[in-house]
Amino acid sequence: MAKNITPKEKDYSQWYLDIIRAAEMADYAPVRGCMVVRPTGFAIWEMIQKAFDDAFKETGHVNASFPLLIPESFLAKEAEHVEGFAPECAVVTHAGGEELEEPLIIRPTSETVIGHMYSKWVQSWRDLPILINQWCNVMRWEKRPRLFLRTSEFLWQEGHTAHASKEEAVEETLRMLEVYRSIMVDYLALPVIPGEKTEGERFPGADNTYTCEAMMSDKKALQAGTSHYLGQNFAKAFDIKFQNKNGEVEFAHTTSWGVSMRLIGALIMTHSDNDGLVVPPRVAPVKAVVLPISSDKSKLDSVMLPKADELKSVLNKALGGRFVQIDKQFHLRPGDRFFFHIQKGVPLRLELGEKEMADGRLRAVRRDTGERIDISWDDVSRAVPALLDEIQNNLYARALDFRVRNTFKAGSMGEFKEVLESKGGFIEVFFAGTKEDEKAIKEATGATPRCFPLEYDGDFGKCFYTGRESARRAIFAKAY
Amino acid sequence: MAKNITPKEKDYSQWYLDIIRAAEMADYAPVRGCMVVRPTGFAIWEMIQKAFDDAFKETGHVNASFPLLIPESFLAKEAEHVEGFAPECAVVTHAGGEELEEPLIIRPTSETVIGHMYSKWVQSWRDLPILINQWCNVMRWEKRPRLFLRTSEFLWQEGHTAHASKEEAVEETLRMLEVYRSIMVDYLALPVIPGEKTEGERFPGADNTYTCEAMMSDKKALQAGTSHYLGQNFAKAFDIKFQNKNGEVEFAHTTSWGVSMRLIGALIMTHSDNDGLVVPPRVAPVKAVVLPISSDKSKLDSVMLPKADELKSVLNKALGGRFVQIDKQFHLRPGDRFFFHIQKGVPLRLELGEKEMADGRLRAVRRDTGERIDISWDDVSRAVPALLDEIQNNLYARALDFRVRNTFKAGSMGEFKEVLESKGGFIEVFFAGTKEDEKAIKEATGATPRCFPLEYDGDFGKCFYTGRESARRAIFAKAY
Repeated sequence: MAKNITPKEKDYSQWYLDIIRAAEMADYAPVRGCMVVRPTGFAIWEMIQKAFDDAFKETGHVNASFPLLIPESFLAKEAEHVEGFAPECAVVTHAGGEELEEPLIIRPTSETVIGHMYSKWVQSWRDLPILINQWCNVMRWEKRPRLFLRTSEFLWQEGHTAHASKEEAVEETLRMLEVYRSIMVDYLALPVIPGEKTEGERFPGADNTYTCEAMMSDKKALQAGTSHYLGQNFAKAFDIKFQNKNGEVEFAHTTSWGVSMRLIGALIMTHSDNDGLVVPPRVAPVKAVVLPISSDKSKLDSVMLPKADELKSVLNKALGGRFVQIDKQFHLRPGDRFFFHIQKGVPLRLELGEKEMADGRLRAVRRDTGERIDISWDDVSRAVPALLDEIQNNLYARALDFRVRNTFKAGSMGEFKEVLESKGGFIEVFFAGTKEDEKAIKEATGATPRCFPLEYDGDFGKCFYTGRESARRAIFAKAY
Repeated sequence: MAKNITPKEKDYSQWYLDIIRAAEMADYAPVRGCMVVRPTGFAIWEMIQKAFDDAFKETGHVNASFPLLIPESFLAKEAEHVEGFAPECAVVTHAGGEELEEPLIIRPTSETVIGHMYSKWVQSWRDLPILINQWCNVMRWEKRPRLFLRTSEFLWQEGHTAHASKEEAVEETLRMLEVYRSIMVDYLALPVIPGEKTEGERFPGADNTYTCEAMMSDKKALQAGTSHYLGQNFAKAFDIKFQNKNGEVEFAHTTSWGVSMRLIGALIMTHSDNDGLVVPPRVAPVKAVVLPISSDKSKLDSVMLPKADELKSVLNKALGGRFVQIDKQFHLRPGDRFFFHIQKGVPLRLELGEKEMADGRLRAVRRDTGERIDISWDDVSRAVPALLDEIQNNLYARALDFRVRNTFKAGSMGEFKEVLESKGGFIEVFFAGTKEDEKAIKEATGATPRCFPLEYDGDFGKCFYTGRESARRAIFAKAY
């Protein structure tokens, strides 16, 4: 067990911060609530970005860039939206040495300014759909910041689309939810539950919000990404109108959807252990590290380093990128070198010691299980990718198993409270309450409705809280 | 000639804006001085980003993310730096519903906050070098904005490195200048001149600034990217210290280097013509467009579109990406469809009409020359990439020729003025003047020293302005 990491059983919050510090993933910035994402953390973000960006483009979306600063008056054009975001805004009042006529807010999200631009770009049904995404920074002032999960500034992507009909827009909302689900499952090894949000948990200004909900290793829920059907709310507020095929003028139907750097928080809290970070191979910027180990410096230089270089090339070719590193920290003891990469979450350690050198082998050590496997040099380009796949699958299976074991049912408020207190985790209930009921449940228990899982669509029962019949099946949990 | 584009000979500024509007590259945002980069413009930026990012990683750099907001007091720690940037800053005074204790500025550049973080990360010589880059938005309030060239917010990359010695830091500064030069030449087809800036043109806080200077098609110069040796100035201001191998504490030597979206402005003003945008193939997100053309709808659907799809697949494979599109704007006349892609700068148009369909051919039309070339279907995967290379080379050669033809010499201030007024362009002179002399020359002529070209290092003569001997050879021009 690592001395620089508080065990998660002892203090989960401290464990989380220790993992980040030990892996050199991020630091707090000098401005309260803001963060610096260090190279180890950012390289993971780049892997995540690429997976999502490819999928967005595959589904016909294009990227663009909208401005950071939004006139304060824009926010007020959609009533629910301003109510939701105004309290968190950072405001620019001076620029270029002068006081501004109208204060500008740093975007907390871009529905308003993008709606304004779409109204200029859309005239006819031929201009629709607009399928645009942007990768950018946003600002929501945080009183209780937490690295990656809640910071005043964070990086994310926000997709914003406009359509000629409700049907098309709803289809898009669900298409992007499915894109989110599949990348989260296949790349991040997060067994997320796609579902619909309750009224109280909707995005301010949306007609409907969908979400992917994940369970962290402290059994709390984390909202990993959301996709919103905005109806005609923003189209009306920003005048996004078009002439349809019959020559009539209609308002467009819009959607928006986003995932952020909090996915890195989700990765940490799903897969990591008391030794440090664990990164699923498919989003690991360094998938394997080769460690030449010998006290004989001339042998290192003349034989072992060249061999390590050769294996690195073979492996990078097999893996299709610059994914393998060689550890040359010869001033450290082997154990410290191992630990360095364990704490950074590198999926596979490939040791090349005197013995391996003599036998024409590598000793592979799995980050997820600690298991040791000997791999002959001429088998590396097959065996290493296969092992990485096994690690990827194991991390997913392990997280899914954890979620399943920590999901319970409750039929009444009494049962609900008892399960939540004694076991925690996700609680499946039938629910037909109002926004006010949600609030009351939260006040009484600390738990909130996470979603109506899509897989339970059409599954009805008696509401655990109101007793109403025909309630939909929902999941409640304490959440980040 | 395009009706929606003012000829460049008539009004160059209007031509520039017309090109951008016709290609749907960008729009002004509702906040004065800020811009929206539309998908056509942003896709070019993504191509440019990838070329630079690959080269940065190839030379050992890693990406990270530093905060948008910087405490106002940080800027003041380096005297020249604050003098240079304070007048352009946008200031956040309120956040989360409260007035801030200390105003925060939106980063105009990040030397200060990155210096602050480096001081925490660097203790020993083993922590050096730090080789970090970030892709981000910055803000410099603009009174006279111009799309892509001068906007209040713009996207760029800023590299920031710290080293144990002056020698290493200067080497890094020049290495990145060479990376810039090679990408600008090989990808953007910009015949840039790498050189050293004069004292009056240095980055605020730098010991030395290097630049890549390009000539636009109105003969004015554009600074396309800069690389700075910052000496120990920022290390001293932010306390970036390390223990060297002998156990002594020293200040680090730092560098910074950046290119921005103004490169898109450089592309436009170097290659485009009176018909619209021209994009060099290597940074063109759409390298070729296939246009099935027929008035027979059933033939289009049953034969021509499937053939177009097949050719698109073959070509995308040959080009290694999603670089080919099919035009399905059948509601437009063929001429309007051609024009659509001409104005977006697509390097190759591949027409598939009735005649081509019967002959098993495509008619290729080059964007740069308008030349028509017949390509047999079974030759496309060879002929199209070859044609794209030809276009790339032609654009570079044409721009280089233009620069050479518009570069002149002057031996005295009288000659200098005469050449500048009668011919414009770049003027090569020997120069040994001071910062004050630079200012006087600018006031008298409007021209500024662009750089001492590296290729003329060691080439000395008599200063055209002061008459001093042993002056270095420099280039002067009017500049953006």
